[in-house]
Amino acid sequence: MRKILIIGAGKSSSYLIKYLLDKSESENLQITIGDIDVENAKKLVGEHTNVNIIHLDVFKAESRTEAIQNSDIVVSMLPARFHIEVAKDCVKHKKHMVTASYVSKKIEALDAEVKANNLVFMNEIGVDPGIDHMSAMQVIDRIRDHGGKMIMFETFTGGLVAPESDDNLWNYKFTWNPRNVVLAGQGGAAKFLQENQFKYIPYGRLFRRTEFLDIEGYGRFEGYANRDSLKYQHVYGLDHAKTLYRGTMRRVGFSRAWNVFVQLGMTDDSYTIDDSANMSYRDFVNAFLPYSPTDSVELKFRHALKIDQDDIVWDKFLELDLFNHDKMVGLDKATPAEILQKILMDSWTLDKEDKDMIVMYHKFGYEIEGEKRQIDATMVVVGEDQTYTAMAKTVGLPVAMATLDILNGKIKTPGVQIPISKEVYTPILEELETYGVKFNEKKVPYLGYNPLNL
Amino acid sequence: MRKILIIGAGKSSSYLIKYLLDKSESENLQITIGDIDVENAKKLVGEHTNVNIIHLDVFKAESRTEAIQNSDIVVSMLPARFHIEVAKDCVKHKKHMVTASYVSKKIEALDAEVKANNLVFMNEIGVDPGIDHMSAMQVIDRIRDHGGKMIMFETFTGGLVAPESDDNLWNYKFTWNPRNVVLAGQGGAAKFLQENQFKYIPYGRLFRRTEFLDIEGYGRFEGYANRDSLKYQHVYGLDHAKTLYRGTMRRVGFSRAWNVFVQLGMTDDSYTIDDSANMSYRDFVNAFLPYSPTDSVELKFRHALKIDQDDIVWDKFLELDLFNHDKMVGLDKATPAEILQKILMDSWTLDKEDKDMIVMYHKFGYEIEGEKRQIDATMVVVGEDQTYTAMAKTVGLPVAMATLDILNGKIKTPGVQIPISKEVYTPILEELETYGVKFNEKKVPYLGYNPLNL
Repeated sequence: MRKILIIGAGKSSSYLIKYLLDKSESENLQITIGDIDVENAKKLVGEHTNVNIIHLDVFKAESRTEAIQNSDIVVSMLPARFHIEVAKDCVKHKKHMVTASYVSKKIEALDAEVKANNLVFMNEIGVDPGIDHMSAMQVIDRIRDHGGKMIMFETFTGGLVAPESDDNLWNYKFTWNPRNVVLAGQGGAAKFLQENQFKYIPYGRLFRRTEFLDIEGYGRFEGYANRDSLKYQHVYGLDHAKTLYRGTMRRVGFSRAWNVFVQLGMTDDSYTIDDSANMSYRDFVNAFLPYSPTDSVELKFRHALKIDQDDIVWDKFLELDLFNHDKMVGLDKATPAEILQKILMDSWTLDKEDKDMIVMYHKFGYEIEGEKRQIDATMVVVGEDQTYTAMAKTVGLPVAMATLDILNGKIKTPGVQIPISKEVYTPILEELETYGVKFNEKKVPYLGYNPLNL
Repeated sequence: MRKILIIGAGKSSSYLIKYLLDKSESENLQITIGDIDVENAKKLVGEHTNVNIIHLDVFKAESRTEAIQNSDIVVSMLPARFHIEVAKDCVKHKKHMVTASYVSKKIEALDAEVKANNLVFMNEIGVDPGIDHMSAMQVIDRIRDHGGKMIMFETFTGGLVAPESDDNLWNYKFTWNPRNVVLAGQGGAAKFLQENQFKYIPYGRLFRRTEFLDIEGYGRFEGYANRDSLKYQHVYGLDHAKTLYRGTMRRVGFSRAWNVFVQLGMTDDSYTIDDSANMSYRDFVNAFLPYSPTDSVELKFRHALKIDQDDIVWDKFLELDLFNHDKMVGLDKATPAEILQKILMDSWTLDKEDKDMIVMYHKFGYEIEGEKRQIDATMVVVGEDQTYTAMAKTVGLPVAMATLDILNGKIKTPGVQIPISKEVYTPILEELETYGVKFNEKKVPYLGYNPLNL
């Protein structure tokens, strides 16, 4: 029996556990799930054998070490900041490790030891980061193998509500951490590269500098820039690319409306409002508008943002019940961002029957035989229900597959790594297709940033 | 002879030194000016006797302590962060101290010792802070002495160019630290109180939420909110006031144009641009606009901010030569704010003949005998030349007067303090009038924030 230890069985582990349990007979797997709260794991496992669930507090060294010693490979689904405790034990006891999180400096620093012990520490193998790395590198490598030269790479990912559950004016519901959505884009200007020019967008303009993206069968989306589009320039081998852009996808119109919150200061998380508990939603909005003894909050709001009464954006705010006198914030000394999050959760929380959706869009621009060409690749995954979500699927399946591939020696190059090598992405992308996680590639005319072809 | 030590003889010390030298015979003063660079002091002093200039490095304890021991009172005109070294010596050797700077926590912490030694440590006795405190408290105390109850206090100050030197479209030149002007309003939402409601303005809206202020003979100004309007609420005794607002004055139209820089991200000081040295002004502007192979930087700029070609705001940017291909930034790895500052200094540096101007506007709203009333008080001071500036006058004269008043026992209440008591402001405001620094008071109908009186 090969022994897999999964630490942390939260929201995104349903598919991960199901995949490994389904393979446990054929692949001879003994699975242990350790969590500080074992209830969720119990629900996910059901009546399955080949699995045991243990109480595991990652900060209690003894039980953690014992569980790790007793495994062949460790999957950490903990919040990213907790991985390092697990990673150190894995090095010490010579166990492979898999996470879906960004490589932290602390984890990176273990690389030499990991290599010396011939171990694989695979990170960023969820959806974003994860599937984006693998699917992008597969196309980039193929272009290069054919003698092409990359000149442009753009990539967008979005966690959205599925079309069949998309029933509000924002075309949006919270399918992941709402706080991250409210704070998205804060903390500095977005930086990217367009035709060899560095471009900067401040937070106040971020949601007005979108671009449109069409996905066949799913309609039109929009993308706004992530903070650092140059993060993977070097590791992807794109040092000479002229255009690099990483973005987040929303349905068209979301950003224009969201920008109103940004402009008014309602996404600010840097100060608290003293008497927030006793504010109504209307009072909260009014705190960002000038005082008037006569004008309504509605009119001040529309005037400040120059919103016409018959503009659809206005209906979006009405839908959120933003001007309600009676609904109370009820949060003590909360920041504007915390209050806004609460108001949005009234409207944007998934209903029981709702399904989520992950969308991804890559654009690859390249030169071959003196000609400029472009490939667009898109992926759409829709969730099954609120346990087997698209998010859990696209995060959990690659993690699970990488885990098995490491055990089976398909992935064997040692070191702290992310899934950008053929050894890693080839088997995983192939297998993901059998689960419906697949990219639709299309050759399109290369337009770059010259859409009118002038 | 009474011995006054002035540490730091920079830009704002011309009037301070002149005042004390003029009084040195009649008041029997021996003045010592200590600076790390004695040249400026030499120029200011000229052939005058009763004064000696010494080289003084505030961080060299020995010479600092010797100079302080050898004086009766110390005036520190150093940058605010250096006062503490001087202050500690003053406590130790039992000398009074005067500064025009905000009271830091470290200075505040000396209060008990200062009182125990019967010393006066007077701070914030320049113009803003300084003249604003004194002139406001004089009116507030008078209203209260007559049985009135304060319900509103608004105060605005601006350092501007004098009307006779006002020859650009922005009606603005740098009369003080340009960096502070570029960064003004950053670092968090502005907070103030309007009719008992807390109001918050994020940086991105700050320059669009101005109010107009008219000063007889000087025309119309505008004011935008300072970050914390509630700072002096308690010390002014305004705990029950319904409206509190502190702002900065500019000529009308400045803020609307400045807001364009804010929106584009050109005032950001949080990151550096790698190749800034080799950028033209035009390249710099273009870094904040989308790439286009065809559209001009000018059109992209106007489109992004929705500026019509015949809008006066557009001419303001042309006047700055913002779109020049040939003028180079020439600053290595500079922040956007640093680059913008350089561009502005081309246009907004005072010419040799230019004069500056300090303007101040207070609004006092109060209730008396069941009636609501309002007093508006305004002050305008115009500089004489680039040495005897309005800034140096309004900072230096109150500092000098307070120094003499302390020596003469007119100001005697001990402690670390700011000029808000009658003992302090009465003689100083009276004397300032003889120098042309005076307020014009006017009774106006109380409108509060109900200008249409609905």
